[in-house]
Amino acid sequence: MNFPDLPALAAPDLAARVQYALDHKTKPLGALGRLEALALQLALIQGRERPSLQSPQLVVFAADHGLSRRGVSAFPREVTPQMVANMLAGGAAVSVLARQHGLALTIADCGVDAPLAPGAVDLRIAPGTADASVGPAMTPAQAERALRNGMALVERLPGNALLLGEMGIGNTSSASLLMQRLTGLPLADCVGRGTGVDDAGLHRKRDVLGLALAANAGAQSPLDVAAALGGFEILTMAGSVIAAAATRRVVLVDGFITTAAVAVAEALRPGVLAACVFAHQSAEGPHALWLRHLGVRALLDLDLRLGEGSGAALAWPLLPAACAVLADMASFESAGVSNRA
Amino acid sequence: MNFPDLPALAAPDLAARVQYALDHKTKPLGALGRLEALALQLALIQGRERPSLQSPQLVVFAADHGLSRRGVSAFPREVTPQMVANMLAGGAAVSVLARQHGLALTIADCGVDAPLAPGAVDLRIAPGTADASVGPAMTPAQAERALRNGMALVERLPGNALLLGEMGIGNTSSASLLMQRLTGLPLADCVGRGTGVDDAGLHRKRDVLGLALAANAGAQSPLDVAAALGGFEILTMAGSVIAAAATRRVVLVDGFITTAAVAVAEALRPGVLAACVFAHQSAEGPHALWLRHLGVRALLDLDLRLGEGSGAALAWPLLPAACAVLADMASFESAGVSNRA
Repeated sequence: MNFPDLPALAAPDLAARVQYALDHKTKPLGALGRLEALALQLALIQGRERPSLQSPQLVVFAADHGLSRRGVSAFPREVTPQMVANMLAGGAAVSVLARQHGLALTIADCGVDAPLAPGAVDLRIAPGTADASVGPAMTPAQAERALRNGMALVERLPGNALLLGEMGIGNTSSASLLMQRLTGLPLADCVGRGTGVDDAGLHRKRDVLGLALAANAGAQSPLDVAAALGGFEILTMAGSVIAAAATRRVVLVDGFITTAAVAVAEALRPGVLAACVFAHQSAEGPHALWLRHLGVRALLDLDLRLGEGSGAALAWPLLPAACAVLADMASFESAGVSNRA
Repeated sequence: MNFPDLPALAAPDLAARVQYALDHKTKPLGALGRLEALALQLALIQGRERPSLQSPQLVVFAADHGLSRRGVSAFPREVTPQMVANMLAGGAAVSVLARQHGLALTIADCGVDAPLAPGAVDLRIAPGTADASVGPAMTPAQAERALRNGMALVERLPGNALLLGEMGIGNTSSASLLMQRLTGLPLADCVGRGTGVDDAGLHRKRDVLGLALAANAGAQSPLDVAAALGGFEILTMAGSVIAAAATRRVVLVDGFITTAAVAVAEALRPGVLAACVFAHQSAEGPHALWLRHLGVRALLDLDLRLGEGSGAALAWPLLPAACAVLADMASFESAGVSNRA
């Protein structure tokens, strides 16, 4: 399968010019901390000294999972279409937060086990993946279709910012499996409580995921791993990340499951990570470890573990703020302020 | 000196109703983490189940310090009026961020060592405090006037949210002195690099602050401590915090110096802390320790150390987001979503 080329984001001359501009704004050197690093990253993504953000798009990728029939979640499988309907009706957390920040909200049905909801975008592959605990979650052809769907979706969307969200009962299980296979960390370090399983549920979840890893032991190439252990929403999202990075959009990553999609995308097309900003470190146990493994640090740490894109929506205002620092703050010279004693 | 009574924010019945509402929103229990705690705090501050925020006011309290003549800062004293002019002209970080979030910006001159800048509010006590390394920074009468100025300012401001900002070369020194005397922690744990003094500067700063503590050893009551070691902007701000808490406004605290004002306010009128939300943990070394000592946790941790109210402005969108969760999210019942398996 072919993926688009990525622009070269490493640009030492541009980086030096942006750093010079930041260092001469009316503030002590580095005093805006990680907001300055964010401003620099946005400049490099857009390839210009004064990045600006237009028409941010929050896309919720939804699908069902074969594993959700194996008791890995605290919530029943029918909650996926119910929450899709709630998002479209405006009552979900992501709907409320997207409205607050003026984010266009798209719900992409990538394979929910229910009829297509009016208002959702039809990117359906099948009514849920197969049960990964006995074999691959999807066929290679399904995986490629999901990746292509995600790329095509982003190419149709306006603006230069993609915020990732997801909905799918059972999808922390799929994310945990991908984390284990892509990082090589022990499975126990890759599994959390998801929507809130109790201790017995957590043991059951670990057992089922252990079966899934064994049943898919042969899957080792990135595409095979993604097909064997992923979900339709995760692969569609991975495609969207690749297309966004290829078109110099910034990708604002939400929590654990969206991180799985980014990790799959990075495995398939190394370099997309440079276009990604991580919105928050989730309270889902393994997320902090995965962020460290990827060598990134998230903006917020608010003990969120909802998904949907809620953390991405909450972190969003920091991105235009970083742009505004570069565009609108005065320099010592322009403001006539004395620089250091 | 008399301070207004505070409303009783502890209201078990209201807290139980708000928690019930949060627990029945369409999300796993507690999945919005600290945003849920923030929603509850805002409800208790406003005394109603559905808090809402109007006309947020960011006030930058500015003044000069006698200590700035003693080499405690990396920047010269004239930067205070220069930055006040920059804020009023719209080029400072706080100007840019306040604009971005629709925050009304007021610059209150509490005692800058320069003529009153056009557009600043005149709450001037004197052109800078006296040198605290040889005696009290201000007289008791000056301290009381500053506190009254702050209370009167807030009573004139519209809306129900006060965001704290400050400007004053040398004011991390004053905040460090207040921290030491109010917490009893060792001076070395209370001193940081401020705008960025080097190692020699840090040693000089510690020495000067040691002299100030010795010269004001007799100041032990909250008002005496505030007068001996404070600054005009810090005391005016402390008065504003008391008035805000008395009128059920939420106070969004910025970094190290605004925390000093809140600590002074809490010492003078215990209970104001319940009305305060801490925007961020500053990269100014002692701030994290002071927050722990106060028993609070800040929303953001972005290595900011600029002051001005920049961190408060950056954290602001989380407050209306918390209100929106309570006001606009559907419940499991209203949305027809199944709750747990």
